[in-house]
Amino acid sequence: MKSSKLKIIPLGGLYEIGKNITAIEYGNEIIVIDCGLIFPEDEMLGIDVVIPDITYLLKNREKVKGIILTHGHEDHIGALPYVLKKINVPVYGTRLTLGLVENKFKEHNINNANLNVVKPSQSINLGVFNIEFIRTSHSIPDSVALAIHTPAGTVVHTGDFKIDYTPINGEVMDFHKLAELGQKGVLVLLADSTNVERPGYTMSESTVGDTFNDIFLTAKQRIIVATFASNIHRVQQIVNSAILFDRKVAVSGRSMVNVVKVASELGYLNIPEGTLIDINDMHKYPDNKIVVITTGSQGEPMSALARMASSDHRKMELIPGDLVIISATPIPGNEKTVAKVINQLFKKGVDVIYEALADVHVSGHACQEELKLMHSLVKPKYFIPVHGEYRHLKQHAKLASELGMPKENIFITENGSIIEFTKNSGAIVGSVPAGNILVDGLGIGDVGNIVLRDRKHLSEDGLIVIVVTISKQDGSVISGPDIVSRGFVYVRESEDLMEEARKLVREVLMECEKNKITDWATLKSSIRDALRNFLYEKIKRNPMILPIIMEV
Amino acid sequence: MKSSKLKIIPLGGLYEIGKNITAIEYGNEIIVIDCGLIFPEDEMLGIDVVIPDITYLLKNREKVKGIILTHGHEDHIGALPYVLKKINVPVYGTRLTLGLVENKFKEHNINNANLNVVKPSQSINLGVFNIEFIRTSHSIPDSVALAIHTPAGTVVHTGDFKIDYTPINGEVMDFHKLAELGQKGVLVLLADSTNVERPGYTMSESTVGDTFNDIFLTAKQRIIVATFASNIHRVQQIVNSAILFDRKVAVSGRSMVNVVKVASELGYLNIPEGTLIDINDMHKYPDNKIVVITTGSQGEPMSALARMASSDHRKMELIPGDLVIISATPIPGNEKTVAKVINQLFKKGVDVIYEALADVHVSGHACQEELKLMHSLVKPKYFIPVHGEYRHLKQHAKLASELGMPKENIFITENGSIIEFTKNSGAIVGSVPAGNILVDGLGIGDVGNIVLRDRKHLSEDGLIVIVVTISKQDGSVISGPDIVSRGFVYVRESEDLMEEARKLVREVLMECEKNKITDWATLKSSIRDALRNFLYEKIKRNPMILPIIMEV
Repeated sequence: MKSSKLKIIPLGGLYEIGKNITAIEYGNEIIVIDCGLIFPEDEMLGIDVVIPDITYLLKNREKVKGIILTHGHEDHIGALPYVLKKINVPVYGTRLTLGLVENKFKEHNINNANLNVVKPSQSINLGVFNIEFIRTSHSIPDSVALAIHTPAGTVVHTGDFKIDYTPINGEVMDFHKLAELGQKGVLVLLADSTNVERPGYTMSESTVGDTFNDIFLTAKQRIIVATFASNIHRVQQIVNSAILFDRKVAVSGRSMVNVVKVASELGYLNIPEGTLIDINDMHKYPDNKIVVITTGSQGEPMSALARMASSDHRKMELIPGDLVIISATPIPGNEKTVAKVINQLFKKGVDVIYEALADVHVSGHACQEELKLMHSLVKPKYFIPVHGEYRHLKQHAKLASELGMPKENIFITENGSIIEFTKNSGAIVGSVPAGNILVDGLGIGDVGNIVLRDRKHLSEDGLIVIVVTISKQDGSVISGPDIVSRGFVYVRESEDLMEEARKLVREVLMECEKNKITDWATLKSSIRDALRNFLYEKIKRNPMILPIIMEV
Repeated sequence: MKSSKLKIIPLGGLYEIGKNITAIEYGNEIIVIDCGLIFPEDEMLGIDVVIPDITYLLKNREKVKGIILTHGHEDHIGALPYVLKKINVPVYGTRLTLGLVENKFKEHNINNANLNVVKPSQSINLGVFNIEFIRTSHSIPDSVALAIHTPAGTVVHTGDFKIDYTPINGEVMDFHKLAELGQKGVLVLLADSTNVERPGYTMSESTVGDTFNDIFLTAKQRIIVATFASNIHRVQQIVNSAILFDRKVAVSGRSMVNVVKVASELGYLNIPEGTLIDINDMHKYPDNKIVVITTGSQGEPMSALARMASSDHRKMELIPGDLVIISATPIPGNEKTVAKVINQLFKKGVDVIYEALADVHVSGHACQEELKLMHSLVKPKYFIPVHGEYRHLKQHAKLASELGMPKENIFITENGSIIEFTKNSGAIVGSVPAGNILVDGLGIGDVGNIVLRDRKHLSEDGLIVIVVTISKQDGSVISGPDIVSRGFVYVRESEDLMEEARKLVREVLMECEKNKITDWATLKSSIRDALRNFLYEKIKRNPMILPIIMEV
């Protein structure tokens, strides 16, 4: 067999937290690790989600053997419905991960997917690759790291992980497998960089359960806990506390209802018979016998918690004395929406416990000391920090370097880079297309920079449309100019300004007529320039100006 | 003299952090404490700043004796230029505060202001009120609390404060005056709630200087420190470290240059001769002999630091090895812009030290134990928590209550409430107009909900304009329909969609003509409804649809 090289091509997840997807290629075979989405940046106005550019996979579609998922979070599985529609290859993941994927596929009307359950500690063969699934800890159960054995050597991809010696389900991360791999020799490590800026250790998930018990012990009325639907261990701990303090559990919020259903069916969530009640039956129980588990921990305006806070929830009205626990940290960018919900809740007379006030959340990602353990167990020859903004990748490289890895063996690289390895070498050798595909409604990739620039312009100063009808014969004005504005000024209070604007456009048109200017481009730009200067002078605003000429 | 009641009317600063302004009224006299602005919420698209509604002051303009400023931050002085244009009353403040106000007035071409310097420990009489200025500590020098003596009793307003036993200028907060006031009896306390969620103490400003020295000790190249221009003690510490390690200091960023100038002239900043160099002369010194003090610690896109990070600064190009210190915490909502700048800096090969990595910032606001000291010294009969979102006011009320204040003596209230006091009573008795006045360019208050709603709509899905010319005689279509879109789809890739839309509008018009529908409102809404349904069906987007009918 001709000696080939191993290529690792991250198509997403570098210089960003989200949209994780990495291609691993050897000879004529490619496997893909994860297939996530990312939520739009503030400046991507009107965009719903952002998915990776998979041009490279489509160009090499006959090489792609399958997609392997590390866990069931949106930034690892969220782009699957879009990607599988273009390239329907087998998908491999643990049972819960695929349960969540199936749920997602139902919403997207996908029913021809080839889903294959793999258990932690099992391995599969895909072409030349042998892939071991290795149990880790994270903020969703059934998360795995992967060891990918290739002819050039072994690649370890941590997925998202933290180290938890006392996980809720008792299934501790498989340190022994990682140690064994390290002992045998690992060529490349790709590791989660999300929390690399934080010194020390992430606390165990079970510490949150202790906090819940402390809170439940003294609570006198209903308890409402908001958390991420996918954090099933968190949900389990809420259920455990409810049972301990003899409360019934109701569930609210579409994704929470879905996840609780899937996780219960698959055995990842253990809710004893008689504990769960329908939210419509809450009135049958005293207030101090009820816990509601809900979505909305990020203050999402349409979520169940936000609706409760604004008295807009169909099935539940909060009353003074109710206790709301927000069991999450605001994801960067969500601080203000979360604060808004907290303020609304307090105004309703509800007690609110949130991260600033008690230890009701722990992260799902490894801090510095945990990362050091991972590096020390796996002992890779080469290292690619992944899952992070540039600053995280940089800090993670520094951490690896401080543990003794030569700087030239660390690759801080961007989406689309091809990093090529042999048993004894590693180098960035080129790049493939990679980037953001914007999804807006049913449109995938049809909103680009021009559209976004226009949306931004419109959002800041609004719009003025000037319509004028001119004669085909002699170019004289037959009707108009009419001016319509939106998002510019409150017209009723600015009639004078608009009348002056109309007068100005009329003068411009007369001037053009006098000078026999008839080509529309010149006419339009004359109107636009005159009006722009006038408005900026008058009111220091710069609306989009849209002259429209009709000819009759 | 007829016995009057004391009224405290917060016109801003409640249920929000910013826009601080409070009216204090007794008999026929009103004084105003602070006059700040707040930066717009995300949904206030295109708005520059937000100022308080002062309808109540304008209605009672003959009563208003003056405005008293506690310190020179924007959320306490920023609305002055707008307010003084409407009601030109004397302004009182400490020297630095008024120095910054004067600077601001220059930019707004205000030159008829009546500014009066008052020193800490001095007092002034305004009508019936005697007002004592009391030195405090905060993230800007010359900050004061106020004791306002009225016939009904004494009101203490803390302004923004922290407790710093080792402030940079050696001028410790006037604990003795506060203790004396408490001893004699204080009717009402209004106190800063910003940091009430944080347990413990805020560290002394001087701890940041120690960190600077540690960093400067080992730095090999240029050091660039970004911080708030108004944090003059921070600037002083950077200068001190520069001198200690034999570096020259250059200043970048318009507001930093301004503040350094004002503060130096007034003696609040002590920069020895020969330390300061022009930024254009930096090349004359070795890299390890230079410190640049700059704006941009919040990642503001037009700031000096952001320009350096994007290689867009006219006078300075960062080079690998330069060290940037971001000596600030992101204000909630700015996390992502700050992260973006940090990522850009790292990509340039620059070392970056920020809050996650070292103690390069302390807050200017009191944490719980400091607030407890303030309450314990002042011993007020009544308490109004101010300067905070609802959750902060609520927590501050809880803190006061835990210190022994009866709940009925604490007023959590909103902007515009009238809280009326006698020597022995306090109650909310009514309200006056209060709210947000939006400033957009030169327009003050002309952008309201309708304009903002339109901007939001435009920002999310863009716009479609349909123009059609119809005959005056018989309503038949003479020209069009023409369709223009902006911010909707990339037209060149969606020609089919736009052609279908045009066809649909044509059909609607023919239908209307057939049914003899000639009133424009019906015609327009028929077009709008048909097009909206069509586009939502086709592409799940909901652009603003603007039908324009021209008649000839």
